[in-house]
Amino acid sequence: MTPSLEQLQKQLKQLPGIGYRSAERIALHLLVEKPGKLPELVAALQAAAAGVRRCVVCGNLSEEEQCPICADEKRKTGQVCVVENVQDLAAIERSAAFRGRYHVLHGKLSPIRGVAPEDLNLSALLQRITSGEATELILALSNDVEGEATCHYLIERLPKTGVSVTRIGFGLPSGSGVLYADAVTLKSALEGRRDYK
Amino acid sequence: MTPSLEQLQKQLKQLPGIGYRSAERIALHLLVEKPGKLPELVAALQAAAAGVRRCVVCGNLSEEEQCPICADEKRKTGQVCVVENVQDLAAIERSAAFRGRYHVLHGKLSPIRGVAPEDLNLSALLQRITSGEATELILALSNDVEGEATCHYLIERLPKTGVSVTRIGFGLPSGSGVLYADAVTLKSALEGRRDYK
Repeated sequence: MTPSLEQLQKQLKQLPGIGYRSAERIALHLLVEKPGKLPELVAALQAAAAGVRRCVVCGNLSEEEQCPICADEKRKTGQVCVVENVQDLAAIERSAAFRGRYHVLHGKLSPIRGVAPEDLNLSALLQRITSGEATELILALSNDVEGEATCHYLIERLPKTGVSVTRIGFGLPSGSGVLYADAVTLKSALEGRRDYK
Repeated sequence: MTPSLEQLQKQLKQLPGIGYRSAERIALHLLVEKPGKLPELVAALQAAAAGVRRCVVCGNLSEEEQCPICADEKRKTGQVCVVENVQDLAAIERSAAFRGRYHVLHGKLSPIRGVAPEDLNLSALLQRITSGEATELILALSNDVEGEATCHYLIERLPKTGVSVTRIGFGLPSGSGVLYADAVTLKSALEGRRDYK
């Protein structure tokens, strides 16, 4: 392999989900099979790097000052779903189960990985509550120790404005049964049991 | 999702082995998690596109006129392993089972996919034989109809210089047994049986 090809392969291998073989396959695809695609990919990377920034309101990715969701007047006002990252926001959007707005923390508290409260997009959230824009928080953080700690930290710092706070449900995923759930999921599911109407 | 992010995702999705989810994950990785990696990837892509061309002798990728293998004087001369593409060459190199030189056809004959003899790097191979540089051909083409047709076509056009031609063996892959082989593999293995020494 030539030096510049090896360098490209090394860069590709650092992307999530790309191993040695995939990196080789992609590099040769772009250089041998579809050389016309390479400049298109470079242009798309450069345009995204130049154009994409964070929404000043919620921290979502945006090309304007506000992201398309914050700017969308048809979204339900007041309701704010707090998520760890943009991937999680995208997953909830795909489900079409939520029509309010979001707040992206860009992480969760983790002493082990060195993520402290000041690393998260928290002050902007507290400001949205103080200003009265957010009246209902839905915490859609992970069902793990770090998600739990982040919820805890947030709730203790909420201004006394009577904002309602819920956390998304935990339990059996759709289409699954008790037999296939691990012990921690079953514990979550039992703790999260609801009145049967 | 913002337009430039969608465009980037679309480009990534066209790479081999990258689906919708992986494309999203890679795009957000480059824009949110590791924004410093994006210019490095762009630089590697551009350097590879600018620097990599085909070896004038064998058709392998190269940054010089001749690829590192053709230029390597320690490789066995005369022996030429004919492969379909650069990936196959790389796989044989990884096996360290061959110390001669290569010839990359950049495809195999396929009337269905519209690959004709003139689309392949064939004339350069015939020239290597005529000039006496290649004295032994090892055909390492696929064990399928198209690989077979390509071998056939090539053998019929060989100059009458007494070049020796072999085709790589077909049969059970290493570590596998008869029980796990499909019928066509078993047929290949039976046809390719050898004297037990």
